[in-house]
Amino acid sequence: MNKSQLYKEIVKKSSFLCVGLDADSKKMPKPLVGNADAVFEFNRAIVDATAQYAVSYKPNLAFYEEMGECGWSVFARTVEYIRKNYPEQFIIADAKRGDIGNTSAMYARAFFDEMDVDAVTLAPYMGADSVKPFLDFEGKWAVILALTSNPSAADFELLKLEGGERVYERVLRTSKEWGSEDNTMYVVGATQAVELENIRKIVPGHFLLVPGVGAQGGSLEEVYKYGANSECGLLVNSSRGIIYASLDDDFAAKAADEAQKLQRQMSMLIHNS
Amino acid sequence: MNKSQLYKEIVKKSSFLCVGLDADSKKMPKPLVGNADAVFEFNRAIVDATAQYAVSYKPNLAFYEEMGECGWSVFARTVEYIRKNYPEQFIIADAKRGDIGNTSAMYARAFFDEMDVDAVTLAPYMGADSVKPFLDFEGKWAVILALTSNPSAADFELLKLEGGERVYERVLRTSKEWGSEDNTMYVVGATQAVELENIRKIVPGHFLLVPGVGAQGGSLEEVYKYGANSECGLLVNSSRGIIYASLDDDFAAKAADEAQKLQRQMSMLIHNS
Repeated sequence: MNKSQLYKEIVKKSSFLCVGLDADSKKMPKPLVGNADAVFEFNRAIVDATAQYAVSYKPNLAFYEEMGECGWSVFARTVEYIRKNYPEQFIIADAKRGDIGNTSAMYARAFFDEMDVDAVTLAPYMGADSVKPFLDFEGKWAVILALTSNPSAADFELLKLEGGERVYERVLRTSKEWGSEDNTMYVVGATQAVELENIRKIVPGHFLLVPGVGAQGGSLEEVYKYGANSECGLLVNSSRGIIYASLDDDFAAKAADEAQKLQRQMSMLIHNS
Repeated sequence: MNKSQLYKEIVKKSSFLCVGLDADSKKMPKPLVGNADAVFEFNRAIVDATAQYAVSYKPNLAFYEEMGECGWSVFARTVEYIRKNYPEQFIIADAKRGDIGNTSAMYARAFFDEMDVDAVTLAPYMGADSVKPFLDFEGKWAVILALTSNPSAADFELLKLEGGERVYERVLRTSKEWGSEDNTMYVVGATQAVELENIRKIVPGHFLLVPGVGAQGGSLEEVYKYGANSECGLLVNSSRGIIYASLDDDFAAKAADEAQKLQRQMSMLIHNS
């Protein structure tokens, strides 16, 4: 999928919602407790309930790896289910990978050839050769960590370099030369909305993946005000606020309600801007 | 395992060799071609052939994930095999993970509870809360990327901050306060030997995991000269140079030869210093 195809989906659904499929196998809703394939069944129910309100799904690999050996199978079947039933959805493997060149190329094949996701999140610490192998796949995306939503983003990302530029700003300026607006996005936490204006000066046209609305305290209105561009340019992620809206029999319906609420707010922002 | 136990193993074997179990499923030696469980059988043969010369094994997750759904099972069985048959070995999951706090805690459980490795490599970009969850496990280690062996380490790791400190130096100074010498190591590439003297001023007592000897061009003598401390303080990794010494019937014997060569060099360095 390229940038204009993603924008078309956003317009069609009046939504830039990404649903984080971060199911904790130890925290399953009542009807799935004891089900041997609970996490896959949970994901399927959540996807079916929310797909009309979302343009993207983002499973975080940590939640699958924590299940042990079977975790990757649940991840793979979840991706396959979305791909088959909702082919318009943009699937992001939130994996935060990055290694030396030949090893990053193995990761790229793992996610793009074996799993067929659209995008993988990457940590930029090791520089160009840790990211570029992901840019060699037609229609696939590297989503590079820029300024994350967690408090300790300040430890390194916000440090000032000689000359006054901050580390995350240099990451944006350097890495935007590695690919294009059709294969590179950036992670910018919603808790960092005050930085979005500045970020838009550096990467005016790139898509931003914005986690941290809801559970982590970020504001959707602020993110849109300072982060949107003429082709939206945003995917805003919500995980716990949607998938864990209820742990009762109505978990899927309640997830749909929460996704719809966010989609309505997004629609208002899109149409009033 | 704590630092003094690791040092005891190094003394006992006169070796600080870590063998990188980075088997490419598409590059199997002749006797294993066509074997449905080739990578596990390969790992088992390599471990059996090299364990007497090594104190540590380091499977890189990229090579397992690239195999698709079955990869994590091969990884898990490899860890289990080493743990059971060579319990003295220090097992490092080279995964380069890192995420917001609650998600990093999931990764920590994945590697320490589900897989029972001794250590996980971590990318420091997201700061303290991406690393600290790994330090909550008694006897387990976080191996933090400091200065990596790849050419593009210069993109961000070597940038100068205001005041003249470089990014990787700040990573060392900040992160050494998060844990102790008994649960924190650093990755420093062998290609960066010129920086080792400087690194030892910042972290004199910590263990360093040093990849890049051999295929990537680093020198063992230089690494030892500038990187060793009074309790060795080094694990030097070799992957391709050992595991792919031969692709013929003699692959395990040739791997043993290469491991022994490195162990002998290491023994000389230890005993002549």
